[in-house]
Amino acid sequence: MVQFGYKGKIYPINPKAREILGLRAYASVRDISGPVDYAIITIPRSMVPGSLEECVARDVKAVHIYTAGFSETGTEEGIALQRRIESIVRGGITRVIGPNCMGVYCPAGGLSFDIRFPKESGSIAFISQTGVGGRRLINLAIGRGLRFRSAVSYGNAVDLNIMDFLEYVVSDPKTRLILIYLEGLSEGQRFFNLVRRCTGAKPVVLLKAGLSESGAGAVASHTASLAGSKEIWQAFFRQTGAIPVESLEEAVEEMVALQTLPPIKGRRVGLVGRGGGFGVIAADMCEREGLKVPQFERETMSQLTKITPFDAGSTVRNPVEIGLGISGVSEHYVSGLQVVASDPHVDFIITFLNPADYIHYGVQGWVEDVSAALREARKTVSKPFAVVLLPGTSVDVFKSSLQIQHTCQKEGIACFTSMDAAIRAVSKLITYYEFRGD
Amino acid sequence: MVQFGYKGKIYPINPKAREILGLRAYASVRDISGPVDYAIITIPRSMVPGSLEECVARDVKAVHIYTAGFSETGTEEGIALQRRIESIVRGGITRVIGPNCMGVYCPAGGLSFDIRFPKESGSIAFISQTGVGGRRLINLAIGRGLRFRSAVSYGNAVDLNIMDFLEYVVSDPKTRLILIYLEGLSEGQRFFNLVRRCTGAKPVVLLKAGLSESGAGAVASHTASLAGSKEIWQAFFRQTGAIPVESLEEAVEEMVALQTLPPIKGRRVGLVGRGGGFGVIAADMCEREGLKVPQFERETMSQLTKITPFDAGSTVRNPVEIGLGISGVSEHYVSGLQVVASDPHVDFIITFLNPADYIHYGVQGWVEDVSAALREARKTVSKPFAVVLLPGTSVDVFKSSLQIQHTCQKEGIACFTSMDAAIRAVSKLITYYEFRGD
Repeated sequence: MVQFGYKGKIYPINPKAREILGLRAYASVRDISGPVDYAIITIPRSMVPGSLEECVARDVKAVHIYTAGFSETGTEEGIALQRRIESIVRGGITRVIGPNCMGVYCPAGGLSFDIRFPKESGSIAFISQTGVGGRRLINLAIGRGLRFRSAVSYGNAVDLNIMDFLEYVVSDPKTRLILIYLEGLSEGQRFFNLVRRCTGAKPVVLLKAGLSESGAGAVASHTASLAGSKEIWQAFFRQTGAIPVESLEEAVEEMVALQTLPPIKGRRVGLVGRGGGFGVIAADMCEREGLKVPQFERETMSQLTKITPFDAGSTVRNPVEIGLGISGVSEHYVSGLQVVASDPHVDFIITFLNPADYIHYGVQGWVEDVSAALREARKTVSKPFAVVLLPGTSVDVFKSSLQIQHTCQKEGIACFTSMDAAIRAVSKLITYYEFRGD
Repeated sequence: MVQFGYKGKIYPINPKAREILGLRAYASVRDISGPVDYAIITIPRSMVPGSLEECVARDVKAVHIYTAGFSETGTEEGIALQRRIESIVRGGITRVIGPNCMGVYCPAGGLSFDIRFPKESGSIAFISQTGVGGRRLINLAIGRGLRFRSAVSYGNAVDLNIMDFLEYVVSDPKTRLILIYLEGLSEGQRFFNLVRRCTGAKPVVLLKAGLSESGAGAVASHTASLAGSKEIWQAFFRQTGAIPVESLEEAVEEMVALQTLPPIKGRRVGLVGRGGGFGVIAADMCEREGLKVPQFERETMSQLTKITPFDAGSTVRNPVEIGLGISGVSEHYVSGLQVVASDPHVDFIITFLNPADYIHYGVQGWVEDVSAALREARKTVSKPFAVVLLPGTSVDVFKSSLQIQHTCQKEGIACFTSMDAAIRAVSKLITYYEFRGD
């Protein structure tokens, strides 16, 4: 908290210390004179109830219990300890986050469970029943240029639970996008109502873990909750408009889509990229994910032919290769995107580039050329578009892909690092806006 | 060919040159005195028929026509030119690869369509109807340590087609694994019979592109072939034992699995990795892909407890976290893998590591520790196992992941860079061996 720059008063509690990091240490929370808003308990589990009792006696508003080893262990001792925690706080004014969790990340408030998280705020709120997974997700997201308004890892949820956090972020005007990692919950109807009310204004991305028999077993030993049935959750998604994702990685891709793309009004995609085989594979992927790759109008094809006179190996049909070759990205590329966007049968564009190819052929300055072309496209292409940088296996490919991603982040361009990630993310975004009826 | 180290005689043909790269140039193939085994035609399409006629007159055994601009353009001129090529070679001894293709890569023969491909031979044969996509696939595969016996990109297939190449590689004793990228074909029954005969001895991985309506349209303009119906191809896969993949990336993952894992005799997986949330997500993924995450035997759990006395936040149930923490990989990790492998309910293990975590926490020497642990595991773990290195967004994560991948390549350990790629690849491998009845 000191390093992260928390602005309030910090009281270290330790019976054996007089000073910690230059701050006066206290033997007990009882010894602090002023009011205490928030306590973090990170001591062995057997000592947690005593410490919590002291917090309750001092009217501490909220207590985050980091310590694990409770119901999730499935042991008698763990279960009994968790029951004691419950009984200590029941009916009182002290509220508990946890146990078995990482707590709160809120850059504006100066709180974080990881000093390496950005101090910069964003508009995403993340409510997570997993700690390690939640931290990983945040790291992946920040690496993709996303920023958080708040995040909470709430673990076994003896007191404050998903509902409490969700009610808060739904009403928070600075939160624009809500992400939830959920294993199980107890108040299904209340959760349903709240999510349904929310999705009309703010997208809710939900990673519901434990939907398989194997996963449900794993949930029991992770956060001691009931996973629920697959059928019920499928109906939940259909009826609430929440966006289902199946992994931490997919959650990040979906947030990139939601934060960078406007509402897309249809499922017909213009594909612009290099290499016929990719186009075919991409078209198959699109259709598997509920998108359509329409034929262009005659007028579109004739304009594309004007831009790029017959070039062996390429065609002016959708998927189209224009201004992309082994020598790099030419000035025809952006014109091609503009023409494709002008086709009345096209709702949006996915354009894919293969950094490995340019590196393989030693093309000079292609990163700058691509970046400049995308900036230009951002200003002049009349329909939404997403960029896919096909992945490679070399450090050079990875590095240049990162450079282009950074340009896209700055310019607010949707950028993905695999074709199927892009297609899935965009398709789910469209489903969401269809639900909203925008 | 000169740079790649082709050992035979090379005759450059160019009417305007007397010498090319220090080799005597010829005005026409007719001027060469000795026999000519193989010709490569890379001149504008209008000149292709004349050049091909000269090759036929000289009894050249095989001609690779690199040039594009034929039936795949859908233009009258292109279609007419392709018909002319067909009529020139029909019934003669000269056989044609192409047009609109990259030709042959065969390291043992000194042939390659890319000088940067490895000169080292492997046991994979790759038959590809796409050129740019085929080259990308080879590059991805070599980056993952895979090596090729041969590869051919055959494009529009006016003469030699998938059947001819497949018959050859099926009978080649040095080919152990066959990969096909296919858009369309004309002799369905013959292809079916040949693949079915082959899969009993050699796995056939098949990327059948153009199975969607959109994809079929794209196929028409890419290689001018008919894509066929989805239902027929689903039956094809069921009845032949060919392994279906849906992207170039997935094809590479499947080959990694087939080249590094032995036959796996069941679908029950022991998951060993860090972080409860990942375990739940991984368990869900396993079940979606037809795998099971069984409960461990009591004896297994008691042995796991002995190795690692109660550690808050971890459990001894499947998925299990053992010897993995934010401080790195401990000596308990390999023992944990051994114990899990000894459980009679477990057929194989997937173990996942999160490089981003170790880098985030500045753990020293973890790449070496992980590499040493995996080497040790390779020798002492009694059941097949696959390693997953969870992806990250930083160059450091990418680099250390590559280092561990290289260790795995050397040691013959199956290593993947995402959880769902690993699970899907292994599940399809099991389905293949079930089909074979090994």
